Amino acid sequence: MPENRYIHGYSARESERLTDQAETLTSLLHDDTRYPAGSRILEAGCGIGAQTVILARNSPGALITSLDISEDSLQRAGEKIRKEGITNVTFRQGDIFRLPFEPASFDHIFVCFVLEHLAEPLRALEQLRPLLKEGGTLTVIEGDHGSAFFHPDNPDARRSIDCLVDLQQRAGGNALIGRELYPLVTDAGYADVRVSPRMVYVDASRPGLVEGFTRLTFTAMVEGVGPEVLKQGLMTREAWERGIAALCRTAAPDGVFCYTFFKATARK
Amino acid sequence: MPENRYIHGYSARESERLTDQAETLTSLLHDDTRYPAGSRILEAGCGIGAQTVILARNSPGALITSLDISEDSLQRAGEKIRKEGITNVTFRQGDIFRLPFEPASFDHIFVCFVLEHLAEPLRALEQLRPLLKEGGTLTVIEGDHGSAFFHPDNPDARRSIDCLVDLQQRAGGNALIGRELYPLVTDAGYADVRVSPRMVYVDASRPGLVEGFTRLTFTAMVEGVGPEVLKQGLMTREAWERGIAALCRTAAPDGVFCYTFFKATARK
Repeated sequence: MPENRYIHGYSARESERLTDQAETLTSLLHDDTRYPAGSRILEAGCGIGAQTVILARNSPGALITSLDISEDSLQRAGEKIRKEGITNVTFRQGDIFRLPFEPASFDHIFVCFVLEHLAEPLRALEQLRPLLKEGGTLTVIEGDHGSAFFHPDNPDARRSIDCLVDLQQRAGGNALIGRELYPLVTDAGYADVRVSPRMVYVDASRPGLVEGFTRLTFTAMVEGVGPEVLKQGLMTREAWERGIAALCRTAAPDGVFCYTFFKATARK
Repeated sequence: MPENRYIHGYSARESERLTDQAETLTSLLHDDTRYPAGSRILEAGCGIGAQTVILARNSPGALITSLDISEDSLQRAGEKIRKEGITNVTFRQGDIFRLPFEPASFDHIFVCFVLEHLAEPLRALEQLRPLLKEGGTLTVIEGDHGSAFFHPDNPDARRSIDCLVDLQQRAGGNALIGRELYPLVTDAGYADVRVSPRMVYVDASRPGLVEGFTRLTFTAMVEGVGPEVLKQGLMTREAWERGIAALCRTAAPDGVFCYTFFKATARK
């Protein structure tokens, strides 16, 4: 996928955000993905390696191949992996729609925060399937920005999130893809599809998530598209600022924030 | 609370719906509420007894007092209990804002699908607190209609749900109260407040929930307010019918439906 199709993921601040996000959400999203020693894993769309580090730590004996289309991202992912002393990851540059692998090359395929950026997520899943050995598994994790709700509720805050969804749609992606994982993975021909929602629920009794998720992950991500929202005239500056202030307000001691990720597993 | 403040809960069809809802959601909402034998429990706002049956079955040795303001509801709750052969429940008519009990009468208080109907949920929680013995616990369960999202997404379906929220607000209630449980219970003076979201996630791999939740609980509940929505002109008949059709559509094999309940526990 060309870089200009990305709504987020490439600036330095964004890359910090993605790292924060990955560490805050690690157990919620990843703890139940552990691959056996010696198994061959394809991480399709590794980006700057935020999930790669977790994947490799949780399955230290697995042989992980992490693919991305962006040489720049791969370079940064490689630096991250080396810094962490991780040795079971090989990087490979390539396009998810022209995969540089033989059929049945992998025992398991892992796809995290990738389908949301693709105009043809179904075709991507279809293309990945032949790379699995018989009985091999697919794991997909995606967010869903339409799952966000919060207290105090606020129409400008809701509108600011809708802008993120609109921008991702204009770029050919789908920020509401989490809820669609079951039909997508099923339609792509996989068996035993099982989807589980993973809600991040944040109130003042969970200060790590107030900071790590509400502020540094979600609100930061919405704030990040501010210039584009104003440039495209999707909201007035005043309404946008009220929306961001209202999102920040949900991190106050009486605030609450909810967001749901979806994790699908299936067999070839 | 006067009967005309209720948006749902009193018609025969509604009472069937509430029974269906209670049975489908039993384990998700109730399995972690078990009271010791001999403990004294107040169920504040038992309605027609849909939750009372579950409460009494899960804590067969507890002594449960179930309060409601409506004599008619209490009579039907009593019939249900007798039909089930349950003997550890006593019914009491009374107002949650003028509670007919001595201080420190109960070990535990249970409040389920009640606060959403009240104009003063905080005051209700405050009034209940003195009835607890020192160290006694409060358990509150509420839904949140703003937590609903689905695939395929549809603006008329979303609007039809917003109508439900609007009508409940006009009646003095709050259909978005689930997300507010943490600040409400905290502000009412309780300690050790812990809230956990309970998402009902429904796709075709869970046919019991497709029927029991998407169709018979949620869509039926929205359909139930159709006459009032049309009477008040909140939506045109055409838009309303499109909205209901779109909600039904989420029960198709490629549809997905998500709704979140919230459960709060706290100590006096």
